[in-house]
Amino acid sequence: MKKSPEFSLIQQYFHALTANREDVIVGIGDDCAVLNNPQDFYTAISIDTLVQGIHFFADVDPYRLGIKALAVNLSDLAAMGAEPAWFTLALTLPEINDEWLKQFSAGLADIAQQHRIQLVGGDTTRGPLTITIQVHGHLAKDNILQRNAAQTTDLICVTGCLGDAAAGLQYKLGQLDTAPLTDTDIEYLLQRLEMPTPRNQIGQQLVSKAHAAIDVSDGLLADLNHILHASNKGAKLNLSSLPFSPVLQKLPLKLATQLALTGGDDYELCFTAPAENVAKLKQQFPKMIRVIGEITQDKGMYFQNAQGEWQAFSKIKAGYDHFA
Amino acid sequence: MKKSPEFSLIQQYFHALTANREDVIVGIGDDCAVLNNPQDFYTAISIDTLVQGIHFFADVDPYRLGIKALAVNLSDLAAMGAEPAWFTLALTLPEINDEWLKQFSAGLADIAQQHRIQLVGGDTTRGPLTITIQVHGHLAKDNILQRNAAQTTDLICVTGCLGDAAAGLQYKLGQLDTAPLTDTDIEYLLQRLEMPTPRNQIGQQLVSKAHAAIDVSDGLLADLNHILHASNKGAKLNLSSLPFSPVLQKLPLKLATQLALTGGDDYELCFTAPAENVAKLKQQFPKMIRVIGEITQDKGMYFQNAQGEWQAFSKIKAGYDHFA
Repeated sequence: MKKSPEFSLIQQYFHALTANREDVIVGIGDDCAVLNNPQDFYTAISIDTLVQGIHFFADVDPYRLGIKALAVNLSDLAAMGAEPAWFTLALTLPEINDEWLKQFSAGLADIAQQHRIQLVGGDTTRGPLTITIQVHGHLAKDNILQRNAAQTTDLICVTGCLGDAAAGLQYKLGQLDTAPLTDTDIEYLLQRLEMPTPRNQIGQQLVSKAHAAIDVSDGLLADLNHILHASNKGAKLNLSSLPFSPVLQKLPLKLATQLALTGGDDYELCFTAPAENVAKLKQQFPKMIRVIGEITQDKGMYFQNAQGEWQAFSKIKAGYDHFA
Repeated sequence: MKKSPEFSLIQQYFHALTANREDVIVGIGDDCAVLNNPQDFYTAISIDTLVQGIHFFADVDPYRLGIKALAVNLSDLAAMGAEPAWFTLALTLPEINDEWLKQFSAGLADIAQQHRIQLVGGDTTRGPLTITIQVHGHLAKDNILQRNAAQTTDLICVTGCLGDAAAGLQYKLGQLDTAPLTDTDIEYLLQRLEMPTPRNQIGQQLVSKAHAAIDVSDGLLADLNHILHASNKGAKLNLSSLPFSPVLQKLPLKLATQLALTGGDDYELCFTAPAENVAKLKQQFPKMIRVIGEITQDKGMYFQNAQGEWQAFSKIKAGYDHFA
């Protein structure tokens, strides 16, 4: 019935993650970490929990899990346009498994190093495997990228490709017809599910070029709907512009479209920006930005059917609710 | 296999906790919270997880659990002398229990309001009951209260009373001889276990008056030992000075002493300071500060036995390890 203020486990396995930033005044090992915020910057923070059996399979590779645990949080910083700085880790473990901890911390270290984000605090407790990470980023005070500032005639864009992670999940659940796919294709889909790539570099550019942004974690329609709702706008989508990976293109078009629209777990960015800024972003990030529609004054989400008529999405799948 | 970026549950039950601080630029509901740090202050942060069955009993009153979940984190800010500002809540729940959530959030709201700390972010997931809270506080840059700055001849002090929570735990486990105690006494012990009082007001005064501080979560000896180890010092303790509540005084002295030294879960502060500053603190906080010993150049922890001789503690109980 006591907490442990000691970080022996974290010091042992996560040591490589706890050094190198000069803005960390007191790191792991005291009652609090003490952090030095740059002047004229806000702090952006986000906290996310991954629970075994809910957010990941029990047999997932722990190296990949280490990457994903930080990636989903970095993705929130990306959607806000914040520069990653520090994170904390609350790790609940059923047992001390040396090999698991080595692999998990190696994954965490690799993605942390890539994004120059430092582990500054943590807590380890015993219990069912649960990983909670909070990330902290710096955000220039004059540019905040929220969900509520989409403007009429903004182009709606997404980064990367959509639907791969959802296809990977269908494969894991035994629901994907793998006839058109090679083993390499399947491994690609699993990597997109198990090791998403947060788009922090693009996100930091969006603060000065986009009006609104969100990361695609619950499926494009659900997440775009958050922007529309917060901004009091509508959208016209061009479904033939959805960005599919070469692997997803091997699947039936209808399935690929459904996975891209409602699948989730992509951790790509969806943003709205004026056309001239989209052009600049496309130059800056070749092949990474796809225009998929336009913000409208009229509410609702519409797409063009095979006859060229605009149709309302009859059912926008609501954000995934873990308690639904 | 997806996370929920939505905070509908948090917005529904924790709404009262999410308002009122002007330094919250973006609160709950976007990808990140955006926070405005005061100039010339560091940010102190701490994260702690409470797991059902490890840190609290399944039958604990949810209102009290709400208080404790934040209290143990506020206590870390107190030990650092930081002023509470913001917190995040990652809540893993086996089910949506309306009555439980109402009670839990009411407890959380009451202690949050008391300490002017605002809920700025959160995540709700399904799984075994686990509560992770991260607190953020402001810390003037010229005063950081760490564990490593105890000076020889500093007086060793504690706030409040020690051992009550441990006695409450023994009662819950059916290990306490309750013959000397009334029902009111037992309720008092349970309250100390289930609703500890973080000492933030005193902690904020310590930054200018104490050399080193820690909160007593794992038992006085274990936590004082962290100060001694970090400061490279030793201590002489006067066991007859240990602060016992009137209820603990009804128990056999040997048991009360053992509970106070090794019991833990007190969430009082243990600090070291020069005698003149201790005198000032005693005036400022009457009856709340007790001198229990002195910092020594020679390492080790000693106490005076019945014959007046100094004896080493033969066994300093190490910090509670959830994996021991």
